[in-house]
Amino acid sequence: MKIVIAGLGNIGGSFALAIKDNTSEHDIYAIDIDTESLKNAEESGLITKGYEHPEEIIPQADLIIFSVYPMILKSLVESYAPYFKEGVILTDVTGVKRSIIEEIEPLLPDNADFVFGHPMAGRENRGLSFASGEVFQGANYLFTPTGRNSGENIKMLTELVEQIGFKNVTSVTPDFHDEVIGFTSQLAHVIAVSLINSDDTNRNTKAYTGDSYRDLTRITNINEKLWPELFIMNKDHLLSHIDGFRDQLDQLTTAIENEDIETMQKMMIESRHRYHDLHNLDESVWK
Amino acid sequence: MKIVIAGLGNIGGSFALAIKDNTSEHDIYAIDIDTESLKNAEESGLITKGYEHPEEIIPQADLIIFSVYPMILKSLVESYAPYFKEGVILTDVTGVKRSIIEEIEPLLPDNADFVFGHPMAGRENRGLSFASGEVFQGANYLFTPTGRNSGENIKMLTELVEQIGFKNVTSVTPDFHDEVIGFTSQLAHVIAVSLINSDDTNRNTKAYTGDSYRDLTRITNINEKLWPELFIMNKDHLLSHIDGFRDQLDQLTTAIENEDIETMQKMMIESRHRYHDLHNLDESVWK
Repeated sequence: MKIVIAGLGNIGGSFALAIKDNTSEHDIYAIDIDTESLKNAEESGLITKGYEHPEEIIPQADLIIFSVYPMILKSLVESYAPYFKEGVILTDVTGVKRSIIEEIEPLLPDNADFVFGHPMAGRENRGLSFASGEVFQGANYLFTPTGRNSGENIKMLTELVEQIGFKNVTSVTPDFHDEVIGFTSQLAHVIAVSLINSDDTNRNTKAYTGDSYRDLTRITNINEKLWPELFIMNKDHLLSHIDGFRDQLDQLTTAIENEDIETMQKMMIESRHRYHDLHNLDESVWK
Repeated sequence: MKIVIAGLGNIGGSFALAIKDNTSEHDIYAIDIDTESLKNAEESGLITKGYEHPEEIIPQADLIIFSVYPMILKSLVESYAPYFKEGVILTDVTGVKRSIIEEIEPLLPDNADFVFGHPMAGRENRGLSFASGEVFQGANYLFTPTGRNSGENIKMLTELVEQIGFKNVTSVTPDFHDEVIGFTSQLAHVIAVSLINSDDTNRNTKAYTGDSYRDLTRITNINEKLWPELFIMNKDHLLSHIDGFRDQLDQLTTAIENEDIETMQKMMIESRHRYHDLHNLDESVWK
């Protein structure tokens, strides 16, 4: 297959690396406005060739992986669409799905099949220089098929991402995707940003941190050009998850205020059970 | 020095391991009610000898490291005190300081110098089998000297914990300790427990998590016999930190509700600066 990666940044570069390292039957091309990155990627053998102008490579593409910010996706699809090859498969890496699908599907010609997807792999740093196929190993992947998609193409993409290292590749509805991502990813970012911003900067806290604080703030190296858009596009689910979190925080705070050890213990036992369930651990071996 | 570790669990065992691996001039003994653990520790060479009865070894101890729950510490000090050697040095590993010091200092005979301390090293699992000298490497350590302590003994302990792997070994006031630990450790645990307990267990969330959620919930494998006591002993500082966090959470939530991108971006840029400061990173190399 001729695979074109549109946007050779951190995620796009990681796709190129992971495809190159784990498959042999594909040719990888890239489109980017950063000619320097393209040149480096060509010279290192990461891609066969890089292009600035989509019309030079899109007509040959069997699969296009859009690895760009959600707000750029629409204009790229519009400008690429006239050059799509018959039967081209498209996919994306966007962290929200309902609004993106609603925006993109009306733009698609009949001969193009856009299977929307979300690789749930770490990417706290921006740019090609941070790309790594390693971050995909064992990570989860969600596809959100719609009525437009061919089952065969969903199957092909599922196999491809499994081949390059992802595990638990699941197809869910766009709404389910946004609901669960609103919890596992967006709420986590809201909490982490709130935590680090509530630090008293006069205290020089970093001299006194343990692993807990570093863990809870690792994702605060956040990209402010991306995340506000994601939050707004998923506002309903995110606000509902913030409410749910706040309910638990209120209960625990009240228990602390009242020195109510029994309630605190109940909540901690519950959280420990959930920890063991999350990590598929047998709690009895640890007690 | 003859060092006695009182309580050969995870932290006590880690001390024994780290002292054994990084020094040669000390003999390590242990007191525990778990004779099986003592036997294993003797057989593996971790300790020279284990004891169930303090009177058999306390009279020879130059340094006693109390590695027990805060609620047990008082009764141990009371029962050991009659056997203290002249000039014995005592230290602990308790996560709160003001109330512990207030409780313990009146029990001490004049010939004993208790330098209270707090190794800030991971210990999410209980028991000797999880002990590891590795967790101390590069971790922070806080001592909270009082008017009773000899400068020489503080210096000796500082050098010892540096020798076994700790970095940033700092002496602070008990109140400063409790204030900063209330933020970096206790608030982090309150948040993590609230987050995992707000998960919808019908969703099978674990199939859809990325690193963010796993990072933010790692410390939910929490010991419910220990933490409620710690929270209550540090209630004033902890509640004030929860308030500060909630203020930030409210601001960010309001910005999401209002789709106020500018405020969100401001908060994220601030959090990113703080992330770079926390990790001593030069932000410019990453941009």
